[in-house]
Amino acid sequence: MLKLYSFGPAANSMKPLLTLYEKGLEFEKNRLDPAKFEHHTDWFKAINPRGQVPVLVDGEHVITESTVICEYLEDEYPTAISLRPATSAGKAAMRVWTKWVDEYFCWCVSTIGWHRYVGNMVKALSDAEFEEKVKAIPILEQQVKWRRAREGFPQDMLEEDMRKIAVSLKRLDDHLCAHEWLVPGQYTLADICNFAIANGMQLGFPEFASAQKTPGLVRWIEQIKARPAVQQMFAKVELEKLGPRD
Amino acid sequence: MLKLYSFGPAANSMKPLLTLYEKGLEFEKNRLDPAKFEHHTDWFKAINPRGQVPVLVDGEHVITESTVICEYLEDEYPTAISLRPATSAGKAAMRVWTKWVDEYFCWCVSTIGWHRYVGNMVKALSDAEFEEKVKAIPILEQQVKWRRAREGFPQDMLEEDMRKIAVSLKRLDDHLCAHEWLVPGQYTLADICNFAIANGMQLGFPEFASAQKTPGLVRWIEQIKARPAVQQMFAKVELEKLGPRD
Repeated sequence: MLKLYSFGPAANSMKPLLTLYEKGLEFEKNRLDPAKFEHHTDWFKAINPRGQVPVLVDGEHVITESTVICEYLEDEYPTAISLRPATSAGKAAMRVWTKWVDEYFCWCVSTIGWHRYVGNMVKALSDAEFEEKVKAIPILEQQVKWRRAREGFPQDMLEEDMRKIAVSLKRLDDHLCAHEWLVPGQYTLADICNFAIANGMQLGFPEFASAQKTPGLVRWIEQIKARPAVQQMFAKVELEKLGPRD
Repeated sequence: MLKLYSFGPAANSMKPLLTLYEKGLEFEKNRLDPAKFEHHTDWFKAINPRGQVPVLVDGEHVITESTVICEYLEDEYPTAISLRPATSAGKAAMRVWTKWVDEYFCWCVSTIGWHRYVGNMVKALSDAEFEEKVKAIPILEQQVKWRRAREGFPQDMLEEDMRKIAVSLKRLDDHLCAHEWLVPGQYTLADICNFAIANGMQLGFPEFASAQKTPGLVRWIEQIKARPAVQQMFAKVELEKLGPRD
């Protein structure tokens, strides 16, 4: 059976979860706890040496990178529900949106998410405990991110990434005011991968996202949340409790 | 006929050029001059509102983003030469490498490339001429990059991106010391997209890349340069003359 290693249904971990539920595929859930740094443990790094979730294990194959996992599921498990357009031009339109979320939108949201929530996870640790945790992280950029979560992100980085979030939400809204889905005519991995990052924006960033300010975006978020597969996912897979905002 | 709008055979413009030559597809070459900011002219922004090359026009379809163009060519024009693995796991392995070059490797190389070469293109302009050029750039981050090319990149950014280049070349070399191609067993878009950024590293970054320091990387670069399609591309499509290094 397919095995998924992930956090709860948010951000990158939500992408393969949504794809699996949408396609109705059975899979073994292996839930890691970010607060315990479980993705940096030796047992998990034996599966993904980069110490990152999500990971899909399909027999002998270990598939990494959330967007690539979604594409793999679509390639390897064709189902009645297809999450990729049939035409080459449609596929390209989908990929432009999944590339954009991976290169631009997810990074600015990640900085602010870490600033607001991840700091609380590590501030209770002693310096020695924290250094021990950081030593186990295989990617230097991730080590830097954990340190910044503990010590504080530079103010100019926070401001720049808030600006990019505003740009991102406007770009989505402009498109979604004119189109039902990101690729016109079909719910695809472009919607799944962008929804995984955009869900909850009205709560986290009400200055940028609301029914008044971004009607297309909010309509699209609600429309995705009403899908049976999405409701099933949220009912069956619990979200992390991130604690109070910093 | 397919129409490609691009700069010369380097960086992102090289990706579709290599794919077109490798697949033996006929196409109309539309060469833009970056020194004249031709990609920010109104006629070109009517084709790609983001003012970026490369762009592929195929009848009514306008395909943007270099890696996506390569995927589109593979989807729409299946040829005897296939540049994508047949298995789902092989496709995923390819996408991990094309995702990585787009998210990590190309950005650090881009900063240093702009620092070394692009500054010369804009330093001769008057302030008024330069502001006029910047006003025509649709993406704010690109405006910032042109300003930095003129005024100088922050030293900590240059140092951080040099560090990332060293990390990138080591990652490629570690893999290429053990494997002929990035996806074992087949020359794919992973090789094309990474070669487009890695070509010439021994000249530009001899402190990180050489036959002694990165034997796998240099062997792979030479092996790609020896391919008939690659030789044909370099013979038929002239490189930009970037002038002396800054």
